[in-house]
Amino acid sequence: MKSDVILLGHGSGGKLSHQLLDDIIIPALSGVATRDQNDSAILPAVSGELAFTTDSYVVDPIFFPGGCIGDLAINGTVNDLAMAGAKPLAISVGLIMEEGLPVSDLQEILAAMRTAADKAGVNIVTGDTKVVPHGKADKIFINTAGIGVVRNGIAVSGSGARPGDKVLINGTVGDHGMAVLASREGLELESDIRSDCAELHSLVEVILEAGGDNVHVLRDPTRGGVATTLKEICAQSEVDIELTETDIPVRENVGGACAILGLDPLFVANEGKLLAIVTEDVTDKILTVMRSHETGREAAIIGTVVGTGEGKLSLQTAIGGRRSIEMLAGEQLPRIC
Amino acid sequence: MKSDVILLGHGSGGKLSHQLLDDIIIPALSGVATRDQNDSAILPAVSGELAFTTDSYVVDPIFFPGGCIGDLAINGTVNDLAMAGAKPLAISVGLIMEEGLPVSDLQEILAAMRTAADKAGVNIVTGDTKVVPHGKADKIFINTAGIGVVRNGIAVSGSGARPGDKVLINGTVGDHGMAVLASREGLELESDIRSDCAELHSLVEVILEAGGDNVHVLRDPTRGGVATTLKEICAQSEVDIELTETDIPVRENVGGACAILGLDPLFVANEGKLLAIVTEDVTDKILTVMRSHETGREAAIIGTVVGTGEGKLSLQTAIGGRRSIEMLAGEQLPRIC
Repeated sequence: MKSDVILLGHGSGGKLSHQLLDDIIIPALSGVATRDQNDSAILPAVSGELAFTTDSYVVDPIFFPGGCIGDLAINGTVNDLAMAGAKPLAISVGLIMEEGLPVSDLQEILAAMRTAADKAGVNIVTGDTKVVPHGKADKIFINTAGIGVVRNGIAVSGSGARPGDKVLINGTVGDHGMAVLASREGLELESDIRSDCAELHSLVEVILEAGGDNVHVLRDPTRGGVATTLKEICAQSEVDIELTETDIPVRENVGGACAILGLDPLFVANEGKLLAIVTEDVTDKILTVMRSHETGREAAIIGTVVGTGEGKLSLQTAIGGRRSIEMLAGEQLPRIC
Repeated sequence: MKSDVILLGHGSGGKLSHQLLDDIIIPALSGVATRDQNDSAILPAVSGELAFTTDSYVVDPIFFPGGCIGDLAINGTVNDLAMAGAKPLAISVGLIMEEGLPVSDLQEILAAMRTAADKAGVNIVTGDTKVVPHGKADKIFINTAGIGVVRNGIAVSGSGARPGDKVLINGTVGDHGMAVLASREGLELESDIRSDCAELHSLVEVILEAGGDNVHVLRDPTRGGVATTLKEICAQSEVDIELTETDIPVRENVGGACAILGLDPLFVANEGKLLAIVTEDVTDKILTVMRSHETGREAAIIGTVVGTGEGKLSLQTAIGGRRSIEMLAGEQLPRIC
């Protein structure tokens, strides 16, 4: 690469595009040279239902404590597949870059994508690169789409919660959102708070192995946090859920930062957390396997599905009261993922 | 919808996001309400190899004569699947919107997406919406990814061209690129030139039916145009290709605009064109079926695969000379798709 920043010509489809692909992008992501590439990747036949999902990532800043837009873009899509009870098979990557992006930043992002993909055991098989003039985008936006194969006999869904089920989470809430916010705003607390960005596919494997079809719902509480995700599940399953505030794990520095900024950690984004709603009889077994897993050491039971029909989410507070939780009307933390 | 422009809150994951999804996006694209949605769409099992592709669309302007970013985003991905010999199955949509985008523009774009998807017989099954602050993107960027099922026994590839094969195109070159450029720059010629944006899946069906495995290469010459695409095929197949200038269909107004602006129509983007490289014996048969199809009426034989090893693309010019064609070094027409 002769230029150390991205130029408009790198999105032209011509010589500069091929150079960027051959020298930088393809060696980092997939290793399949442009001369062997076609308009589509071809994947071997699979048996079973397919899961298909997509997300675009516009996080600001693109590098933050605990991760960057690259691993976020892989883990986010891997996790959406995992939440469908699917084994991730292949990922596509669409890059939209702003003219002037340092090539070294792109390289660091691509390396993070590859590391995350390898860790989740998924291949990046196809992609696309666009460049827009300076000022028409913000550094880099990444879209990933993913295909997975649904495990035989597994049908987890947001509509699966039943009265009596327990709500589990695999660790502390709000870490990702507060890490990004602190990093963006240059807050003093920045160095302490790290994003929880991680793949959850391997955790889902052990949960489903332990719980089988007693696992009713799996969902990752990203944008909107635990509260918004549980409100969605309440509506989809037509049930009420009661949370117990003192049971919800929150890191002290995250809780402190939220208190200072007037944010509720239940509404702050996570990128390495899942909510599992399971029948009561398998709760302890699942909690045990979660706590034995790298991304579940601080797993906890945080609530119970209590009734049908209302779609109400409520919180038993630390001081003994009970409050109803509603979705936020507007934007709490823009560009958090 | 209470606001007639997109707000940051529409990307929050909270109430405004749900309202945008339930009131505007989902009715337009898929009809599956948010309450029935999960992190991934689930597709029935299929037999056969899968084709998987993605493209991001950043075209400027977002509306142009003959189409808009919406139908472009569907047709582009449908066509990439079709060029792999695959039947399109499902499409994902990732929207990145700039705060302040008129909701009416979004609605027009979504309607164009749905119309294009219906025409190509493909379902939009999953999606994602992000909003970035004003000035951090340019109106709207769309990513689509697509899954298709590869037809039994079909193995078209950029590496399949063989000496003696004929190069066919389904109509005039350069229409899309010049329509977008004229529209962007407000050129007088704008009203005359329309994008050729169209789905090519149904055309590929009749070509493969007529030609079977005598169809060696299918490729849509989008960014970089016919010249860049054929240069790629020359390299992938390790062959030389000779084109005959007088055989290449170019609309008079497109040719005229190119001449005025110093552009070569062979390098200008198309969005409803395909190159088919086929054995000589089926050429006439395929030309006939192409010309009987809605998107192939002006189909023509434009060149021949002549030799192996060099990867050279050359043009027999109208005045009897021969010139070598190389990929352009930089950017000819930014943000054309």
